Amino acid sequence: MAPDALHIVGTSPNRLDAREKVTGRTRYTTDLTLSAMVHAKVWRSPLPHARVDGIDTSAALAAPGVLAVLTAADLTNCDPYYGTAYKDQPILAGERIRYAGEPVAVVIAETERQATAALHLLDVSLSEYPAVLDTAAALAGDAPILHEHMRPAGHFRDLSHVRHVANTNICHHQTFSRGDIQAGFAEADELFEDTFSVPPIYHYAMEPHAVLAKYEQDSVTVWTATQHPFPVRKELAEIFHLPLAAVQVIVPPVGGAYGSKCYTKIEPLAVACARHVQRAVRLALTVSEACHTVTRHGVTCRVKTGVRRDGTITARQFDIILNTGAYADVGPRVATRASFVAPGPYRIAHVQADCRVVYTNTVPAGAFRGYGIPQVTWAGESQIDRIADHLGIDAMELRQRNLLHAGEEFSPGDLPMDADLPEGLRQTAETIDWPASPGPRRGKGIACAFKDGGIPHSVSTAVVRVHADGSATVFTGSIEHGQGSDTVLAQVASETLGIPLSQISLTSPDTSLTPYDQGTSASRTTTLMGRAVYEACIDARNQLLDMAAGLLNVPQADVSIQQGILIAGHERLTFAEAISQYFGLPGGEVIGKGEWQPSRASGSVGGSAVFWEIGMGGAEVEVDEETGAVHVLRYVSMADVGQAIHQQQCEAQDEGGAMQGLGSTLFEALISEDGQLLNPNLIDYRIPTFSDLPASFSTVLLQHANGPGPYGAKGVGESGMFCVAPAIGNAIARATGVRFYDLPLTPERIWRALRQARR
Amino acid sequence: MAPDALHIVGTSPNRLDAREKVTGRTRYTTDLTLSAMVHAKVWRSPLPHARVDGIDTSAALAAPGVLAVLTAADLTNCDPYYGTAYKDQPILAGERIRYAGEPVAVVIAETERQATAALHLLDVSLSEYPAVLDTAAALAGDAPILHEHMRPAGHFRDLSHVRHVANTNICHHQTFSRGDIQAGFAEADELFEDTFSVPPIYHYAMEPHAVLAKYEQDSVTVWTATQHPFPVRKELAEIFHLPLAAVQVIVPPVGGAYGSKCYTKIEPLAVACARHVQRAVRLALTVSEACHTVTRHGVTCRVKTGVRRDGTITARQFDIILNTGAYADVGPRVATRASFVAPGPYRIAHVQADCRVVYTNTVPAGAFRGYGIPQVTWAGESQIDRIADHLGIDAMELRQRNLLHAGEEFSPGDLPMDADLPEGLRQTAETIDWPASPGPRRGKGIACAFKDGGIPHSVSTAVVRVHADGSATVFTGSIEHGQGSDTVLAQVASETLGIPLSQISLTSPDTSLTPYDQGTSASRTTTLMGRAVYEACIDARNQLLDMAAGLLNVPQADVSIQQGILIAGHERLTFAEAISQYFGLPGGEVIGKGEWQPSRASGSVGGSAVFWEIGMGGAEVEVDEETGAVHVLRYVSMADVGQAIHQQQCEAQDEGGAMQGLGSTLFEALISEDGQLLNPNLIDYRIPTFSDLPASFSTVLLQHANGPGPYGAKGVGESGMFCVAPAIGNAIARATGVRFYDLPLTPERIWRALRQARR
Repeated sequence: MAPDALHIVGTSPNRLDAREKVTGRTRYTTDLTLSAMVHAKVWRSPLPHARVDGIDTSAALAAPGVLAVLTAADLTNCDPYYGTAYKDQPILAGERIRYAGEPVAVVIAETERQATAALHLLDVSLSEYPAVLDTAAALAGDAPILHEHMRPAGHFRDLSHVRHVANTNICHHQTFSRGDIQAGFAEADELFEDTFSVPPIYHYAMEPHAVLAKYEQDSVTVWTATQHPFPVRKELAEIFHLPLAAVQVIVPPVGGAYGSKCYTKIEPLAVACARHVQRAVRLALTVSEACHTVTRHGVTCRVKTGVRRDGTITARQFDIILNTGAYADVGPRVATRASFVAPGPYRIAHVQADCRVVYTNTVPAGAFRGYGIPQVTWAGESQIDRIADHLGIDAMELRQRNLLHAGEEFSPGDLPMDADLPEGLRQTAETIDWPASPGPRRGKGIACAFKDGGIPHSVSTAVVRVHADGSATVFTGSIEHGQGSDTVLAQVASETLGIPLSQISLTSPDTSLTPYDQGTSASRTTTLMGRAVYEACIDARNQLLDMAAGLLNVPQADVSIQQGILIAGHERLTFAEAISQYFGLPGGEVIGKGEWQPSRASGSVGGSAVFWEIGMGGAEVEVDEETGAVHVLRYVSMADVGQAIHQQQCEAQDEGGAMQGLGSTLFEALISEDGQLLNPNLIDYRIPTFSDLPASFSTVLLQHANGPGPYGAKGVGESGMFCVAPAIGNAIARATGVRFYDLPLTPERIWRALRQARR
Repeated sequence: MAPDALHIVGTSPNRLDAREKVTGRTRYTTDLTLSAMVHAKVWRSPLPHARVDGIDTSAALAAPGVLAVLTAADLTNCDPYYGTAYKDQPILAGERIRYAGEPVAVVIAETERQATAALHLLDVSLSEYPAVLDTAAALAGDAPILHEHMRPAGHFRDLSHVRHVANTNICHHQTFSRGDIQAGFAEADELFEDTFSVPPIYHYAMEPHAVLAKYEQDSVTVWTATQHPFPVRKELAEIFHLPLAAVQVIVPPVGGAYGSKCYTKIEPLAVACARHVQRAVRLALTVSEACHTVTRHGVTCRVKTGVRRDGTITARQFDIILNTGAYADVGPRVATRASFVAPGPYRIAHVQADCRVVYTNTVPAGAFRGYGIPQVTWAGESQIDRIADHLGIDAMELRQRNLLHAGEEFSPGDLPMDADLPEGLRQTAETIDWPASPGPRRGKGIACAFKDGGIPHSVSTAVVRVHADGSATVFTGSIEHGQGSDTVLAQVASETLGIPLSQISLTSPDTSLTPYDQGTSASRTTTLMGRAVYEACIDARNQLLDMAAGLLNVPQADVSIQQGILIAGHERLTFAEAISQYFGLPGGEVIGKGEWQPSRASGSVGGSAVFWEIGMGGAEVEVDEETGAVHVLRYVSMADVGQAIHQQQCEAQDEGGAMQGLGSTLFEALISEDGQLLNPNLIDYRIPTFSDLPASFSTVLLQHANGPGPYGAKGVGESGMFCVAPAIGNAIARATGVRFYDLPLTPERIWRALRQARR
């Protein structure tokens, strides 16, 4: 796989979708129309926890343009529940409502306006139950239990036995341990114990969730903005008792996702509507509705760390509580990832992590760029600095003493460290002139984190068709949601087949047309689907070599391919010539297929990492003590991409992650009162803009072409987000002498803390 | 390939498209709309042969809703000519018009009505040239030459050296000979020489030609009712200088074709319009316009046959003249097939056939069910009866003495006869109680013919995806135009994979999504694509067997598949279990691919037949001497299908062909005056209706499972048309004592002939 001379891999060609997008031509799901399409609007619960006593639909049904009103009672001949970890989420709340904003009924009308108007005519009688609005309340002994009966979805092998704690609101209790935590603490000279918190936040993809659905003659077609067309297909097939071949999930270009479009969301509801009215149905959420669909887990994290005076970490214990809201979504999976890597990329003999995923009467929390790592890293890496300060060891030096070296095992049996962490940290620090003192009210901070990237048991499959003129079409089910995967996958095909990018076209994801892919998440696409595309092209190459060998009457071994030309001695054949001579007519084609499943490739299904996704950050800040405002003067983000397929996009991915991290560090939070979201819109929920961009903002990419992806690539995209909060928090602590434990680091919070400290 | 116990092959399940079609839900090309779609209408020449002196578009351009007027002058940066044998047909006539009805200009407007209205505002100045309106005039020494320069399209290997005769209107001169024709005549006791004629007719598919086209960012998408999406893609790529991967040809359900939708027709014009206005363009022809797009070749055929007194045919000579109209279309190809099999399925030592394809100033003639065979069979088989009568040998007996036996070669090096012709003729005759005399004014007739079926050098490719639940999706580029191919291909997959038909879905033809197929013509789909689908399923089966062997730890040879269950000893695995256990998650899939090219499979590219498509007919008629009306009392059609995949559809195909043959025998003809078509509509051009159905109408199918297709299948669909005219003509001759040489056998023609004879 090591590249000899690369032609297009590593360069930065124009994105395939650039022109369409900048000219406004791209048609997202909401831009599509189907013949005789009708519109669905959702009536959502005003109460966080309640019983539905009755729904009077008569007035709504009599309203102009209204075709039907769908309630839970209409969900017959199907499984009315869905969910990725547990089948715990009702398509529509029947007897019981578990969060404010939960879908209870749907009005289907000829126009969206008519559907919206009729919503107000629904008469829903509710009896309020006492609600548990945070994890503390949910864990209290006398707390009402949100879910009595749990039904595992059996989707993830690593969740094959989901650890639900009966008769509690603990949806899932994940534990990891190595060595003997108590012995580890006993070996330590000093113990540090701190508790950190991170509020729930929203992904804020520019495109809210939207689905078009058709249900005709026992077959379903949905156009949906999802990151997981194949798992969505599977769940729809299960819900509506259909064969997979009868369920078609088509994914138009997606306007951002960041995890908010992972797995099944509103697809079952849209399909239920289409089945009910036997018309094509459009269900497009508003931003506020999307905020009431999925969020990022709010986290409370207690960290206890034992160290020797020389800075050696002897033991680390994490107690993590994830608020997963009213339904599990992928909460249990976030728990497995977050608790596994919470201790950080360090050499620690004794580790224990407990992660409880807790149900509350709030909006369900699910996947979000980083998958829990940013939250636990805020805790772990803030504490590392506190330890360094206390021991009087330079924060960079302390980390260097404990960082794993390449080849060292983080966890027995897992993939050895595949990145040069000390080098990465050195470059990160160097970029912000660490440790040079930046002057008054200024401070610098660094942080390190990592994640087991790629989902080792997941499969990606690709097909490439080389046409009779030598041009090619690549079939992949990967989702282009702005990250640039289409261009990257086309580059891999171009490089591997040796034909120009202009000769390659990509099919858009469609479960009926593109081969199986687990999904577009966990920074897996470039590595896993990239590898599948690579293997498919190699398969096609081998067939072309065979053709040429036969046509030129030489052994296959004597034929080589250089830049799309088949060469044997002095003989030369273009792909087009080989194909037309082979078939004896200007037709026919070569079909190559590639499948990649890391666990199978590596001959084992053990281990959790396909590659280690490294994230480091370095920040320099200035704090205005009068206002509490934090100005990030410099920020550097470090990632190990193995081999950049598209150099510019690797940087853009990493910088995008860092900017998103800047938002959740400095001001993003979903604020609730009595279980009601107060800021589900762009006015009240602030996200980073260019004015928040640090004056100096850069990315360091390690490239040793040592990844499992094509040409040595590794995934990137999530890691930029890991370290922003602790790097900035550590910088603020150095600038002000005050340490913060709770995000976001708003001016008000900082101003109050400084005022407190200066008293 | 021999089936052991068949489960679904040979049965007659409901057609996959039945419900959609009978409920009127099927959306044909004309039913589709694209966003911002505009409409194109064609201005056609009123003169058969003329020079274009100028086109004033100003008034039309000023008309409401008009976006543009396209003329030949606008066809820059592209090849303005297309054609399957020769690139001789202009997308729009520039300086020279060669037939009345030829496209000269196109108005593109917001609505179809606005475009039609503006057509009348075009001011086109023409100077009339002398026209050649029939082949006799075209072959006259002083005839104007329609095409000076010929450019072979290089599409067909068997037309690699197209035989154009310079400085004449002979587009192509095809010759075949075996033995020594003069020696053969010398061996004969009697010589017979007759000339027969067949007028041009129209296919009359219920759906006229229609195309939607988009041209965006150097890529083309067309939705078109075509039988040849891949050749159309190739020609569009050539015309507009694009890679094949940038040209997408999508084929919605087609409303009948019969050859009228073979190869490129109006697609280049639609794409040129879309490129010109940078909008999606719809170009949908009226029936009259479709009649001015393609017809069936009018033919004059001189036959000279030498026989011994015992009825042995010693020699046969054919001189065939095809009127191919103003442009070649596939005329040269029709010539190769028609002249090759013209002598009939007989043992004849000395054969010579000359076929001249002649340009005239009439509507181009192209492919039509039977591809020239019905025309030459009218000649050859009418004459056989004349010979039998003259020699006093029973017409059936005479044929039996000369018919090829199974295994005999018709032409050296070609596929030996694969059908039992004597048995087929015996059953045909028996079905109409041959030779029993039917009484006054009644007569019986029989005829035999055959065609080299399937196109031996053509390729079909298929892909099958077996999903994680064991259901499957089949990818084929074959066109469902009413003949039932979707159902047949799904049956082949169902039988081969051993899963129910309900678990199989088929993708619709799309050159960007479905793998290469040469086209849907020449009765090749069941045999060639059926075989490709079979091979793809076998490939998938083998992968499933490997999976199971690995999972069960047994050699692959110990695993078998029965009805979709993998079995090894007492162990049993469903496909779903094998796939999920193999991948270790409820995902992944198995992709099988199959390719079939008969010439490659048989290890040679020689020979013209993949299988012999046999057609025989038996008729009993009653002639009303007062009116000349012919009543067909009984008709039997015989075909050898090897193995019926869908029994009912095989019969329906054969009966459909016979009914279409009945029309061209009794009343169908395109009538022209001064080069103008007089009857391009359903009022003036009569096609058969149920009232024309013979009182007794049946089909005899030979099934010896000895075809090269899946489960021993052979193609069917064209052969029903071969023998209708001679069988009925021979019956009329026996009923009236008068022999007819010219089609159609209208009451007027018969009445006049009888009146003449009875004088």
